[in-house]
Amino acid sequence: FHLFRATPTGMWLVDELHDLFGISEKLNGASGQAIYDAINAKLGTPEFGPRRMFERFNVEALTTTDPATSTLAEHKAIRESGWGGRILPTFRPDAVVNIDMDGWRQEIDRLSQVSGVTVRDYPSFIQALEQRRAFFKAMGATATDHAALTAHTQILNGREAATIFQRALAGKTTGDDARRFTGHLLVEMARMSSEDGLVMQLHIGSYRNHNPEIYRRFGRDMGADIPVAAEFTRSLKPLLDRFGNAPNLTLILFNLDETTYGRELAPLAGHYPALRLGPPWWFFDSLNGIRHFFDKVMETAGIYNTVGFNDDTRAFPSIPTRHELWRRAACDWVAGLVVQGIVDEEDASAMAHALAYGLAKKAYRL
Amino acid sequence: FHLFRATPTGMWLVDELHDLFGISEKLNGASGQAIYDAINAKLGTPEFGPRRMFERFNVEALTTTDPATSTLAEHKAIRESGWGGRILPTFRPDAVVNIDMDGWRQEIDRLSQVSGVTVRDYPSFIQALEQRRAFFKAMGATATDHAALTAHTQILNGREAATIFQRALAGKTTGDDARRFTGHLLVEMARMSSEDGLVMQLHIGSYRNHNPEIYRRFGRDMGADIPVAAEFTRSLKPLLDRFGNAPNLTLILFNLDETTYGRELAPLAGHYPALRLGPPWWFFDSLNGIRHFFDKVMETAGIYNTVGFNDDTRAFPSIPTRHELWRRAACDWVAGLVVQGIVDEEDASAMAHALAYGLAKKAYRL
Amino acid sequence: FHLFRATPTGMWLVDELHDLFGISEKLNGASGQAIYDAINAKLGTPEFGPRRMFERFNVEALTTTDPATSTLAEHKAIRESGWGGRILPTFRPDAVVNIDMDGWRQEIDRLSQVSGVTVRDYPSFIQALEQRRAFFKAMGATATDHAALTAHTQILNGREAATIFQRALAGKTTGDDARRFTGHLLVEMARMSSEDGLVMQLHIGSYRNHNPEIYRRFGRDMGADIPVAAEFTRSLKPLLDRFGNAPNLTLILFNLDETTYGRELAPLAGHYPALRLGPPWWFFDSLNGIRHFFDKVMETAGIYNTVGFNDDTRAFPSIPTRHELWRRAACDWVAGLVVQGIVDEEDASAMAHALAYGLAKKAYRL
Repeated sequence: FHLFRATPTGMWLVDELHDLFGISEKLNGASGQAIYDAINAKLGTPEFGPRRMFERFNVEALTTTDPATSTLAEHKAIRESGWGGRILPTFRPDAVVNIDMDGWRQEIDRLSQVSGVTVRDYPSFIQALEQRRAFFKAMGATATDHAALTAHTQILNGREAATIFQRALAGKTTGDDARRFTGHLLVEMARMSSEDGLVMQLHIGSYRNHNPEIYRRFGRDMGADIPVAAEFTRSLKPLLDRFGNAPNLTLILFNLDETTYGRELAPLAGHYPALRLGPPWWFFDSLNGIRHFFDKVMETAGIYNTVGFNDDTRAFPSIPTRHELWRRAACDWVAGLVVQGIVDEEDASAMAHALAYGLAKKAYRL
Repeated sequence: FHLFRATPTGMWLVDELHDLFGISEKLNGASGQAIYDAINAKLGTPEFGPRRMFERFNVEALTTTDPATSTLAEHKAIRESGWGGRILPTFRPDAVVNIDMDGWRQEIDRLSQVSGVTVRDYPSFIQALEQRRAFFKAMGATATDHAALTAHTQILNGREAATIFQRALAGKTTGDDARRFTGHLLVEMARMSSEDGLVMQLHIGSYRNHNPEIYRRFGRDMGADIPVAAEFTRSLKPLLDRFGNAPNLTLILFNLDETTYGRELAPLAGHYPALRLGPPWWFFDSLNGIRHFFDKVMETAGIYNTVGFNDDTRAFPSIPTRHELWRRAACDWVAGLVVQGIVDEEDASAMAHALAYGLAKKAYRL
Repeated sequence: FHLFRATPTGMWLVDELHDLFGISEKLNGASGQAIYDAINAKLGTPEFGPRRMFERFNVEALTTTDPATSTLAEHKAIRESGWGGRILPTFRPDAVVNIDMDGWRQEIDRLSQVSGVTVRDYPSFIQALEQRRAFFKAMGATATDHAALTAHTQILNGREAATIFQRALAGKTTGDDARRFTGHLLVEMARMSSEDGLVMQLHIGSYRNHNPEIYRRFGRDMGADIPVAAEFTRSLKPLLDRFGNAPNLTLILFNLDETTYGRELAPLAGHYPALRLGPPWWFFDSLNGIRHFFDKVMETAGIYNTVGFNDDTRAFPSIPTRHELWRRAACDWVAGLVVQGIVDEEDASAMAHALAYGLAKKAYRL
């Protein structure tokens, strides 16, 4: 456990052990087994069932991310169970949008199946996506989520888009096809969001499956993803030219390159009505990561162009801890402004509430 | 007004209202109209006339930036008015140098007119520019100012420069012409500065008119400019190879990419005798922007390769506030060095004075 | 001396004067000559002989960097002198690896000479390098050191490598040959290190001999080197694909672009077992440079993927000062963690010792 000293994982674990499981003994080789046993025992009690934890954590809304081809069966089951917890799906179409992903062709078949629209060309593909979005929205979704290596966007004319899509269907994509098609689809998704009102989230800059040995042995998305430098000013321009001023669009940006915070993201979010900045993500969802975010973003963007906090943890019991870390760092930052005479206590109080609660609720239309 | 919480605009406004207009009531929806009326009334009194403010602000020298084609009529008028305030022009030839700017051809005609040199080819263009520089210098200018998207410089031979210029005159620029010509002209401007002693300023990295809707409705330079990443080590090399060690040249660099501060700018300014670093500009002319500058630049460059503070505000009453912000941040930084035992109080006092006054006066040859 | 205010050079000098030479008078124009004389006199005494200083500094091991063609005669002489100080060579093959360096052809001849392997093609070149590594290792070396402008790596097949090498021998390298060959050799060096256990160091991102006037007058490596932006995620992938998980390899990365700390280096070092991060280098071996390193690297990498401190000073008396600066900055950082409740005092104490001593000793297999 000494390897986790001063890391966010270390902080989260200590906090979870203490606040959630009531364990204040220090975790190390000697205490490990006993602590494991204690946690295991607690997890077996009703008090630590998922729904009970959800209620104890005082969660207002929790969202999953689901492929475009999902039937959202679990969401249906929860609804029909009569339980009152608010669990919402999020539309994440990466597997059908990125034509160079393993298994794309099969995903397209599945898309035809679940949407009832036989995807045989570009127009039917778009139609199927629109069908899925409507279905997700009916199931309570308020947002979509998109991942791409870069923020590249571009607008293909109908013929170009159709040709690339046909090549992909035939398994004959060439050269730059995937990058161009993804860039085009992001603009299409912004168009759909400006129409159906689903909040669009964009996660940029993760080089997926960097370690081939891990990929061979364990498959996709096993933690071997490494950030790359990002660019937004030029890359997002085609999308922003069309939809940057669209009144019904909210586009929330996430990325893994802190140098873009002050240089590109804050000026863009300060300028374009449709843009908002998501909180630090992944490696940067940490104490220093949050501090850098406040330091580099807020002066130029203002807090009201950010969306408070959310995270994409896979560890359910870490939810309170992660939000707690954000709230403490946010209040620490606001308190610093008060001490320096930059805002008064009245404003500080409003800002703290917005950062902890109001901004997220408003941005995600919850 | 809550949108400005913790932003520089918020800080400036509060400070101006208090120090300049004597208003300490908090600005918000309720108080807005009354405060507006109070300011308006004051602005109508002689005490708030521009010359009276200039004197109250204790401004030693104020400079405008003027196109190469300007007759500097207002500067003549001020001189002839007998008023003692020192208002100086600055030579800014972007509109005649950047062959891809809207209206470039007309600017060239205007250049012929005001310079008395008929610009019909590259040599006469250079001759006209030299005439204008001499004129600006005679009118009191001590500096020039140049804006470019990147810091790209290169040296074209006479034939290449002439050919590109002819293409531009004929309205037939191709491919990379504009970028190459601007890069070449920057080296030419450095040559002229090394001869006539005008301090050369270079502002890099602003993607102009990013929002096409704003451009369509309101035109150029309406606030829709977004930073891009910058590069200096390779880009400036052609210019520095020729003039980096030139004894009579001062070249002051400004840019909008903080990552270049410690990586490129401070090492370059520490090395080349002709180079100096300008203070944080635009989005970064802010409390945190200034702090980052001190944090990343000063160890490597030393403060004596920087030029103190200046800003390009369009809001006359904001001048004292902006300088005050710089001075406070500078003194805060120097005080921190004293507390940590890095400099003693004697040195600190000299550094504070240099940062607030001496460096700017010396760098701009005022 | 006022030009050094708040720079690392200023801090080092004051500290050396005080701690090493017992001089507490302030250095300036008036005191300079007397201080110079005092130092000079002390340097003439036995107490200030190099071996005596080595012992007084309590140095456990000091390493030199030596070209692949070195006979390590001085190292032999030290060994044979019977003195107990541990001075070790480090294998630095840049001059025979970078086929575009001035004098490369002569270096290859020298390599044939000292290795006893006549280098006439690519396989004999590799064989000669392996001979030299074995010799260095026998002479006590535990590490190699490599410098490159970028972190580009790639794997050439045998035929490609052989062809490029033949072109280089014939003085006919073309286009991208040098960059590709260096990228390939870095992977080869990782292979050799994974076999012979020499720790591999990689220094990236210095644009050498930037000022042609300095180069003309004084030659290579005279301080006119300027950093450039670096990239690792994509560039190191070919090397890491092969050796990132190799159990016997330690690859230590140094670079001059702080933006890669949190974005690329820390995630890579956190992921790949073979990777470690070297301390801040060159311009960044400074108080703020060290602080940025702790701030950006440690949360994600954890301190146990870093290697403590080393520096490449050419000024022997500066060694204690530079290590002292690192230790103070490290302890300042750890103390901050304690104050914030992130680690407890027991962990802090272990971390401080590791950062000051244990990590370096372990990483370099000393």
